[in-house]
Amino acid sequence: MRIPVPLKDAYRLLNHGPTTLVSTCEALGAKANVMAAAWAMPIDFEPPKVAVVVAEGTYTRELLDRNGELVLSLPTVAMLDEVYEVGTKSGREVDKWQTLGHVKASKVRPPLIEGCVGWLECVALAEDALREKYDLVIAEVVAAWADDEVYKDREWRFAPGDSRRTIHHLARGTFFATGERLEARKG
Amino acid sequence: MRIPVPLKDAYRLLNHGPTTLVSTCEALGAKANVMAAAWAMPIDFEPPKVAVVVAEGTYTRELLDRNGELVLSLPTVAMLDEVYEVGTKSGREVDKWQTLGHVKASKVRPPLIEGCVGWLECVALAEDALREKYDLVIAEVVAAWADDEVYKDREWRFAPGDSRRTIHHLARGTFFATGERLEARKG
Repeated sequence: MRIPVPLKDAYRLLNHGPTTLVSTCEALGAKANVMAAAWAMPIDFEPPKVAVVVAEGTYTRELLDRNGELVLSLPTVAMLDEVYEVGTKSGREVDKWQTLGHVKASKVRPPLIEGCVGWLECVALAEDALREKYDLVIAEVVAAWADDEVYKDREWRFAPGDSRRTIHHLARGTFFATGERLEARKG
Repeated sequence: MRIPVPLKDAYRLLNHGPTTLVSTCEALGAKANVMAAAWAMPIDFEPPKVAVVVAEGTYTRELLDRNGELVLSLPTVAMLDEVYEVGTKSGREVDKWQTLGHVKASKVRPPLIEGCVGWLECVALAEDALREKYDLVIAEVVAAWADDEVYKDREWRFAPGDSRRTIHHLARGTFFATGERLEARKG
């Protein structure tokens, strides 16, 4: 079940460096698109902020430049082929909603991607120079969600071998699953 | 053995979102320090650039502001306790070189951290406003290295269960190992 994650914990969804799906849409919510983005990370705790690279020329970026909202959804091992497909084809040429399902977000217009295990609803900050120079988008997280079968007690709790583990892109369609949990010695 | 990684492939070291160790030093190379940073990612392919959050007030940041060079080293499962320790203690209070070993870099003054499996030698770009506002450092990678026992044929090739796999920080000393390799369907 999709449960709300307190904003102060939003960074925890993204802290381990998983690949994301970025969804954006036109100002009125029409013509939404989604692409894969491995280059996304938290940059602040509270209010939570993220940085994500959305390349100039992509349809996702074109929509983002029209309506400064985005959703980062965290896909799973089970979604590997779909993630790679929406990461290599343009929404100008194919309808990516034939590949991935989506549901309404709570505070922004771009949709949450179905089948994912974490979601960050974001509003881009007005850092136009940074976006133009480096394709780097800084955004504030305004709502966060996680699947309570894999996120419990404020932490990811992936079972070994679970197809709902998050994924990490290496290059050209090669990924790593998120591996086993390890605890550092404290003190 | 530590082998050079061509600059065009440097992003591949960091693309899967591992936790990093950031080393910086004073202008003449004295008083080097190291801290753990989970918030680091590639932002461009060639010339390769990275973005990394180095919080104001840390000794690592103080040194970076004096000499705009840094090294990102990629620690392993075997180094978990040491990574957590240098991520939670300040170099103003303890000598972190009693915990971690280091060797000279090739093009910058901060050292490479021993026992790691990947290294990115970086020069920070003059984006002072960004650094002051978000603690976000943009840097160009000027040399890259990987351990050829785990990086082969232009890719990470971690053996299952290998203690030299990279790690991903969740929160408060809980990490994930980089998990099994997965290939998306092409076409």
